[in-house]
Amino acid sequence: MVRVTVWNEYRHERESEVVAEVYPDGIHAVLADVFEEAGHEVRTATLDEGPEHGLTEKVLAETDVLTWWGHAAHDEVRDEVVDRVHEHVLDGMGLIVLHSGHYSKIFTRLMGTTCSLKWREAAERERLWVVEPGHPIVEGIDEYIQLEETEMYGERFDIPQPDTLVFSSWFEGGEIFRSGCCYRRGAGNVFYFRPGHETYPVYYDEDVQRVLCNAVEWAAPTDGPTPAFGNADPIEGIDTSDDRTVH
Amino acid sequence: MVRVTVWNEYRHERESEVVAEVYPDGIHAVLADVFEEAGHEVRTATLDEGPEHGLTEKVLAETDVLTWWGHAAHDEVRDEVVDRVHEHVLDGMGLIVLHSGHYSKIFTRLMGTTCSLKWREAAERERLWVVEPGHPIVEGIDEYIQLEETEMYGERFDIPQPDTLVFSSWFEGGEIFRSGCCYRRGAGNVFYFRPGHETYPVYYDEDVQRVLCNAVEWAAPTDGPTPAFGNADPIEGIDTSDDRTVH
Amino acid sequence: MVRVTVWNEYRHERESEVVAEVYPDGIHAVLADVFEEAGHEVRTATLDEGPEHGLTEKVLAETDVLTWWGHAAHDEVRDEVVDRVHEHVLDGMGLIVLHSGHYSKIFTRLMGTTCSLKWREAAERERLWVVEPGHPIVEGIDEYIQLEETEMYGERFDIPQPDTLVFSSWFEGGEIFRSGCCYRRGAGNVFYFRPGHETYPVYYDEDVQRVLCNAVEWAAPTDGPTPAFGNADPIEGIDTSDDRTVH
Amino acid sequence: MVRVTVWNEYRHERESEVVAEVYPDGIHAVLADVFEEAGHEVRTATLDEGPEHGLTEKVLAETDVLTWWGHAAHDEVRDEVVDRVHEHVLDGMGLIVLHSGHYSKIFTRLMGTTCSLKWREAAERERLWVVEPGHPIVEGIDEYIQLEETEMYGERFDIPQPDTLVFSSWFEGGEIFRSGCCYRRGAGNVFYFRPGHETYPVYYDEDVQRVLCNAVEWAAPTDGPTPAFGNADPIEGIDTSDDRTVH
Repeated sequence: MVRVTVWNEYRHERESEVVAEVYPDGIHAVLADVFEEAGHEVRTATLDEGPEHGLTEKVLAETDVLTWWGHAAHDEVRDEVVDRVHEHVLDGMGLIVLHSGHYSKIFTRLMGTTCSLKWREAAERERLWVVEPGHPIVEGIDEYIQLEETEMYGERFDIPQPDTLVFSSWFEGGEIFRSGCCYRRGAGNVFYFRPGHETYPVYYDEDVQRVLCNAVEWAAPTDGPTPAFGNADPIEGIDTSDDRTVH
Repeated sequence: MVRVTVWNEYRHERESEVVAEVYPDGIHAVLADVFEEAGHEVRTATLDEGPEHGLTEKVLAETDVLTWWGHAAHDEVRDEVVDRVHEHVLDGMGLIVLHSGHYSKIFTRLMGTTCSLKWREAAERERLWVVEPGHPIVEGIDEYIQLEETEMYGERFDIPQPDTLVFSSWFEGGEIFRSGCCYRRGAGNVFYFRPGHETYPVYYDEDVQRVLCNAVEWAAPTDGPTPAFGNADPIEGIDTSDDRTVH
Repeated sequence: MVRVTVWNEYRHERESEVVAEVYPDGIHAVLADVFEEAGHEVRTATLDEGPEHGLTEKVLAETDVLTWWGHAAHDEVRDEVVDRVHEHVLDGMGLIVLHSGHYSKIFTRLMGTTCSLKWREAAERERLWVVEPGHPIVEGIDEYIQLEETEMYGERFDIPQPDTLVFSSWFEGGEIFRSGCCYRRGAGNVFYFRPGHETYPVYYDEDVQRVLCNAVEWAAPTDGPTPAFGNADPIEGIDTSDDRTVH
Repeated sequence: MVRVTVWNEYRHERESEVVAEVYPDGIHAVLADVFEEAGHEVRTATLDEGPEHGLTEKVLAETDVLTWWGHAAHDEVRDEVVDRVHEHVLDGMGLIVLHSGHYSKIFTRLMGTTCSLKWREAAERERLWVVEPGHPIVEGIDEYIQLEETEMYGERFDIPQPDTLVFSSWFEGGEIFRSGCCYRRGAGNVFYFRPGHETYPVYYDEDVQRVLCNAVEWAAPTDGPTPAFGNADPIEGIDTSDDRTVH
């Protein structure tokens, strides 16, 4: 059992009829159901829940894995909240960044790059090929996941080289995309997963749900060492009488 | 010939007698000489040269590789200048981050992590072992570089896993450190190199100089593609009549 | 529960008194106990158990993770058995290679390099520093593991760059070593772990045991896709009438 | 100037009319011209040149970068020659493996995996997308290379995760493929490049030629340290009186 917090911008679903038809209670509601059915302890949080967007220190302290969906209001996420999420990831909290979350403040901060890409909304076919069949994130998945109607994301995707590339996508219109990317930042596991869109029912796809559940388990923290930083006494017996320091 | 800009905080050398004895004209002067002797076109820039710290758009536009030394005044580097350097790195400018530059704004932004570490000033011995003997950065270097008096930096070094780890250091007091780390961020090559300190004459060491010269050549930009980002027409002939977009 | 097979060359323990005093029933017996206590289903196999060294197709088919200890008789492991182990690793069986196993046929075949290194038997101190505190293999481990009496292994270790470097060692005599290295080959997870020697009681160390138990869980197979190889029909409707093939 | 040896199986071109029309003097002749025009010192060698296939110790000792094309006769390459090439790569010789060379003895030995893949000969369109625009191998290349008639190679490509993935391919029939993969093995740089086929005139494509020329420069050896392996005296003054060794 992993303690999952599903974060959602939750604007499109309330403002656009076409989106509300696909996700009447918000994308977060669909994802929360998926993780609950998988046996996890789930809560949700959204942008407009207050100045902390539902991501208080208390909530994050009780979160093993945070999933992030945002699109039109990345800029409205307050920097103090981003700082806090960032700190928790480095301390070991898992982070799963979904689709348009590539442009979120937390993802670009963790990556150190623009995370820009090509995109097109033409309801075209995507085929996510598994390139690492031994990776825990593809448990139960076939050689590829096929989605009939998706927004295209195309390379160049301006990210650091992933620690592990798990999925790579083919698009009908001629592009490819590194669509499942694993990173470790600090002690935290980060997974970027491309599928998902506000107007296509991608999060109802069973394979997509399966990958997300696998990713939650993969991203959950390990109880490893807490590194000490700063001035350190020698472990071996050495002469420490040098006094040239200018601190 | 590479166009190198050597950036230095240049405070310690003016404020502390013990540092001034080692680097009377500043660390940047020593490094500039090294790169000039190697045949490169070199300029220097320092923190107090004005509000842009000598790193104007014009200077960066004419820079292939930027080297960075800072220590006590990282916070005084203005965010606009960091933004500009960041953008140039992603566009292909090489960046070589030296020693205490691990805590600079530009390095932590590119890494996405704290870049914290352990440290100790005891003038102890360091041995930088080459772990990748085929890498261009170690051309002309023996199996290890030995420095008799160094500040210790010890793991855990809170950085993303390097794309390539070239050097790993042994310290007399019992620690180890990933001391030569290669990254690509955007189109830019980034090399972190640990040796160097304000009170130890490390930058006069010929092996250290050799590595820095190799790194300058390794980090120089390649004239590759300039990726297009944003909305993209399909390359293949597909139906683009879908109008569910909510943009 | 993971099905573990502990393989041991098991010669030194029977031929040398000094080794027999440390490992009276063989190194495999100590390791088997460790994994059994951790709740796994364990069997052992040794070089002299017959022409297949205890590694029949049936045994491997029932093995999730194989651990390998060899030293003086690598050449006596029959190529047919190495072929079989190799195939099982690529199909997803985990492999944990211990200490002098770096020179085993199975490890050098999986790596594609010589796996050579420097060594010295001087009962010196080793300190294995954790460089990836968020990795599942270091659960329950402090910042470093200290072993008072070890054989030294030093860089250059002629291996491919690890997918993840988890431990890096400091040695009293001045060397460092990448001592905990993760790889994926085919669908199989491979972990090389340096500690261990026939004359030093390293496998009785609780931290070493803890790492090995963690590694067993990390290396266990995932039930992912079984890739199809060879001639493939198109998934999209394309013209396949070209007949220039010379097959 | 790099000393390049172009190796070719050179059977199809002599045995099949359709191939001879595309490559009347052999694929090696076309590639040799390309490298010569780029200013390199080039020689060629082919399978049937004698028991050493033209790859004598003398030839390899004078080779900086070896390119490899084989398809139907991988098994006829003698193991002694493969051993020799392998040794030279580990010692620093660059190796560029082309298209169907994925199944060559030298590539599978260096990779440690089967290097299997999916394939189809339907003269379909391939688009090689650059995923690392800052890499020296894509100097002068646009965002993608488009080839109108190619054999398809599809994932899963059973290789170790590349040190750097430079190109990833889109195919008309619905597959993707990691088509430009960089590795370092020992001190040697290895580049696998997918394009090329005996019945399609791929090696006349200017972009393909450009990539190959870039790869030759990238793969050329560096004059780095020659690691010492085996028993090593301590560098630091430690007690070496322990006599428990059983060697």
